[in-house]
Amino acid sequence: MTSVITLLTDYGLEDGYVAACHGVIAGIAPEARVIDVCHLIPAGDVRRGAAVLAQTIPYLPEGVHIGAVDPGAGGARRAVAIEAGGRVFIGPDNGLLSWAVHACGGARAAYEISNEEHFLRPVSPTFPGRDVFAPVAGRLTAGLRPSELGPEVPVSRLVALPEPTSLVREGSVEGEVVSVDRYGNTQLSIAAGDLQALGVRVGDTLGVRLGRRQLSLPYRETYAAVPPGELVAFEDSAGLIAIAVNSGDAAQRLGLPPGAHVRLSPMN
Amino acid sequence: MTSVITLLTDYGLEDGYVAACHGVIAGIAPEARVIDVCHLIPAGDVRRGAAVLAQTIPYLPEGVHIGAVDPGAGGARRAVAIEAGGRVFIGPDNGLLSWAVHACGGARAAYEISNEEHFLRPVSPTFPGRDVFAPVAGRLTAGLRPSELGPEVPVSRLVALPEPTSLVREGSVEGEVVSVDRYGNTQLSIAAGDLQALGVRVGDTLGVRLGRRQLSLPYRETYAAVPPGELVAFEDSAGLIAIAVNSGDAAQRLGLPPGAHVRLSPMN
Amino acid sequence: MTSVITLLTDYGLEDGYVAACHGVIAGIAPEARVIDVCHLIPAGDVRRGAAVLAQTIPYLPEGVHIGAVDPGAGGARRAVAIEAGGRVFIGPDNGLLSWAVHACGGARAAYEISNEEHFLRPVSPTFPGRDVFAPVAGRLTAGLRPSELGPEVPVSRLVALPEPTSLVREGSVEGEVVSVDRYGNTQLSIAAGDLQALGVRVGDTLGVRLGRRQLSLPYRETYAAVPPGELVAFEDSAGLIAIAVNSGDAAQRLGLPPGAHVRLSPMN
Repeated sequence: MTSVITLLTDYGLEDGYVAACHGVIAGIAPEARVIDVCHLIPAGDVRRGAAVLAQTIPYLPEGVHIGAVDPGAGGARRAVAIEAGGRVFIGPDNGLLSWAVHACGGARAAYEISNEEHFLRPVSPTFPGRDVFAPVAGRLTAGLRPSELGPEVPVSRLVALPEPTSLVREGSVEGEVVSVDRYGNTQLSIAAGDLQALGVRVGDTLGVRLGRRQLSLPYRETYAAVPPGELVAFEDSAGLIAIAVNSGDAAQRLGLPPGAHVRLSPMN
Repeated sequence: MTSVITLLTDYGLEDGYVAACHGVIAGIAPEARVIDVCHLIPAGDVRRGAAVLAQTIPYLPEGVHIGAVDPGAGGARRAVAIEAGGRVFIGPDNGLLSWAVHACGGARAAYEISNEEHFLRPVSPTFPGRDVFAPVAGRLTAGLRPSELGPEVPVSRLVALPEPTSLVREGSVEGEVVSVDRYGNTQLSIAAGDLQALGVRVGDTLGVRLGRRQLSLPYRETYAAVPPGELVAFEDSAGLIAIAVNSGDAAQRLGLPPGAHVRLSPMN
Repeated sequence: MTSVITLLTDYGLEDGYVAACHGVIAGIAPEARVIDVCHLIPAGDVRRGAAVLAQTIPYLPEGVHIGAVDPGAGGARRAVAIEAGGRVFIGPDNGLLSWAVHACGGARAAYEISNEEHFLRPVSPTFPGRDVFAPVAGRLTAGLRPSELGPEVPVSRLVALPEPTSLVREGSVEGEVVSVDRYGNTQLSIAAGDLQALGVRVGDTLGVRLGRRQLSLPYRETYAAVPPGELVAFEDSAGLIAIAVNSGDAAQRLGLPPGAHVRLSPMN
């Protein structure tokens, strides 16, 4: 076990919630290196949290990875520790971790986090990040094994978010908007490889169907390949197709929320 | 003295101000672990800064704790170092530190920070965080004693914010809104124990008087115990009563600013 | 070479982009101390990024300093490593680093970053921060020399932003708005020393010409020297003249964007 702990939450940065987690970790595992993945996941947006974690995890050292986005915190759902690809993921069993676990080759084993001797006491029902996830992560970097956290959970029983759909058809590929980043770049569930399989090459023009609208966009290596203000499709830094406006905001221009359906096809 | 330094400011994250403090600390105390408590305290909001620091401090390792929220920076008020509960608090003597000091058992000793040999020179009158607090914190973790910072200040002369009021009456408890977090959860100055003393139990219904409005709310273990969109009162992660909307924003719904008066009573 | 790495970007905090850079660095240089200078530079605002980096650099330990604000990422412009004042700056050759390099005494040597063996592969054309700058910075702290990154670039050929203008005339000094901070404090390109050379002393009244408007403002040691709500000019923490409203927002009050022309003169 390395001594890296990462944190992804929807706690925001206006309060002391993130710091409380850092403080608990520092008290238990003073040598651990803590990396903040993101704390501005919109409150309760499990799907957005799952996307950010899954796309960042390939660049994080192996360690203990906490996810805390849980609209049902304090409710009946359990907390789990999931082993995958040399890492341990910790969080609510609500699908938040599922895409990242999948990106690491799938769950090898999972355990319910129920052994209260590793928790901060008393446990606040509304702040498992501080009272459960942070101390457990600290103890895991100090040598505790995931199997000591509680009973094993069959990996087939873990809650998984549906993967963003992507369907290669005859002459087109369909998908959906996965997420929108700070720049307004609109990321689709369509892998660059799927476009390539349709014969689309960088430099081609792409037919894009968004709901009832039909656009044709240049498919380029980067958004900088078109003049400022123009729409472009490109393979983004996660290997997915994104629609951007060079020096502009594509999400705002196109009005495409996460989940919106998109179809791409080669143009002749 | 441990080598943890924590930072709470109203500097925001758009500028390089927080980084300058980190840089100064790293230059003087390269081994210190620095934890950012919060930098998004609204500009000059001493009371909000005091609340966040006081509620986070129990979860931070013992160390040197900088607070820098000071509408009068550069004015006449002095900077102080306050010893409390094995910790040293550093900041303006404007009450910012007072609730955290109280949460740590009260001030054991205090010193004016006036010995300029420990400062960065020249001192900018508008940036004591960088030029005074950061270097002093670094030197304290390197072995400097607080008593070397300047003349002792009688702890009875330290500026203290009035504690949020909470008054247990016959059959009711009165208090005020202490703060509102990212989720819109509205935290009151009323401890869960005060409600318990009135005979209120989890599962009961609570009478809530807000100004001229009278509501009745379920008192539950967590906001997740009511359907999404519904109001609920619960004991929050700081042990205080909070009013929330499950998956919603109670502060927005109720229009309750910090300081607003609230009365809670059991309903039959 | 010390083992400090600093990061200034326009990546924002809503995504996992900053964390990916931290993760890559932690994997290559686990002992390096990483300081976040700022990640909220407005998207593509090279000038604002240059100002924040230049004003923060004097307070950062010597190390490797990454700047990643690049509206043309993925385009033709090269990445460079610039040695200046015992530091190494890494980023796009678009002027972003130029003011900080100047503040460190000017470039001693520069190298194009083109040796791909030090990159993360494959390199995403739109995310050089993660795939080029972060791994290169990690390797530099591990002993790689800048000259191993690629061919030398004559320092005279580096792209430099025009320095903010400041012109001392007979009886007045002209300049421009450099930047506006979180508090709305409006920083000018006029050094406090230039005012002093005109005979202006703290306590005097200053004539301020903003476009067609003419104001007279108190020149004080700090904004706290005037009553709340009043305008004031003072020497800010970077040694430049700033216009502020005590406990208010001068940029909003005056409507002065970065680049706006300003003339200051002594009043009798």
